[in-house]
Amino acid sequence: MTHATETKTAENGVNVTALLGAREALSRAPEAARFKWRATSKWLKGTHSRGTVEGFFGLGGEQMHRQRYQFDSDHPEVFASEDNGATPVEIVLVALAGCLTAGVAAVAQKRNIQLRSVQATVEAPMDIQGILGIDPEVRNGFDRIKVHYEIDADATAEEIAALVAQSQKRSAVFDVVTNPTEVAVTSSKVDRSGAPGEFEC
Amino acid sequence: MTHATETKTAENGVNVTALLGAREALSRAPEAARFKWRATSKWLKGTHSRGTVEGFFGLGGEQMHRQRYQFDSDHPEVFASEDNGATPVEIVLVALAGCLTAGVAAVAQKRNIQLRSVQATVEAPMDIQGILGIDPEVRNGFDRIKVHYEIDADATAEEIAALVAQSQKRSAVFDVVTNPTEVAVTSSKVDRSGAPGEFEC
Repeated sequence: MTHATETKTAENGVNVTALLGAREALSRAPEAARFKWRATSKWLKGTHSRGTVEGFFGLGGEQMHRQRYQFDSDHPEVFASEDNGATPVEIVLVALAGCLTAGVAAVAQKRNIQLRSVQATVEAPMDIQGILGIDPEVRNGFDRIKVHYEIDADATAEEIAALVAQSQKRSAVFDVVTNPTEVAVTSSKVDRSGAPGEFEC
Repeated sequence: MTHATETKTAENGVNVTALLGAREALSRAPEAARFKWRATSKWLKGTHSRGTVEGFFGLGGEQMHRQRYQFDSDHPEVFASEDNGATPVEIVLVALAGCLTAGVAAVAQKRNIQLRSVQATVEAPMDIQGILGIDPEVRNGFDRIKVHYEIDADATAEEIAALVAQSQKRSAVFDVVTNPTEVAVTSSKVDRSGAPGEFEC
């Protein structure tokens, strides 16, 4: 008699059938795979600003999130700021962990591995002599990033390590952080008397 | 008679005196400039997870934020998910804008430019054939990122463009996105019977 757990289907809440269907559909219609992600940000005071995420473009049309998501960011009190939100660099770490964790759940579902808990701890050293302009040899960003997962699942430690490895291979934020992306920043002055002038910088 | 606005001091809510003092102090004590930023993330269900930011290391000791900050991330309904939060890639765009905007405010304060409003619009195209594993030639991350600032300030369009340019030069998240950062991911299985086994992946 076969042990009951051997034939059980994992239920991690990821619709793998739909994802595989989307992959199939998009490989026949690659134009629909061209997405545009967006955010806006409004300065509030000092180093405090509020980011908003609401709509994006994908599958050939404009899409809306179920609701508007907002994120306050600020600098901490040790930077003489008011600490009205997490720092932008901490928010990047949150995004990295969120992306990898979604991947872990999706890969686990595909491999029929039942997850019970997934916890990520992220740590990233930074020498702030860079952002303060003390030493031009010090970069502004992180020196490096460490992510550690503690996972409780119906799987061996090796299978869990393989889940985490596969998640990195498909993670958008892991790619953004580990590889360079071109960022173009432009500005315009709000001219109350007429059209704004635009400047590349 | 001098026009009144020529001698007015800008008030953008950034304590530039304290920041310049910190720069002075940290240039004499570079060890205190070694920070460690942290985040944790807990899987909830499917692609939905919750990130938490609470403490960090800096100025030679453990520091706490004024409060705990939490961020839900999820995939949207067009990815057959429940859309219980912004996607991790949108959260990266929020972080980028938040970092650049804090820089704009700090530089404006230092240059005695009064800001009235600062709005950033960020857009980043992505071909999701990458993350879906359809085409190995397509990267998982963004093709590129565009950030546009509309700024109302007591300054010319050229001065505003210079503010935005200087902000990029000192922005940690701009550096993280435009340059590669090494990410090491490890995992351990929660073993209810004893110590967890650790695996590099």
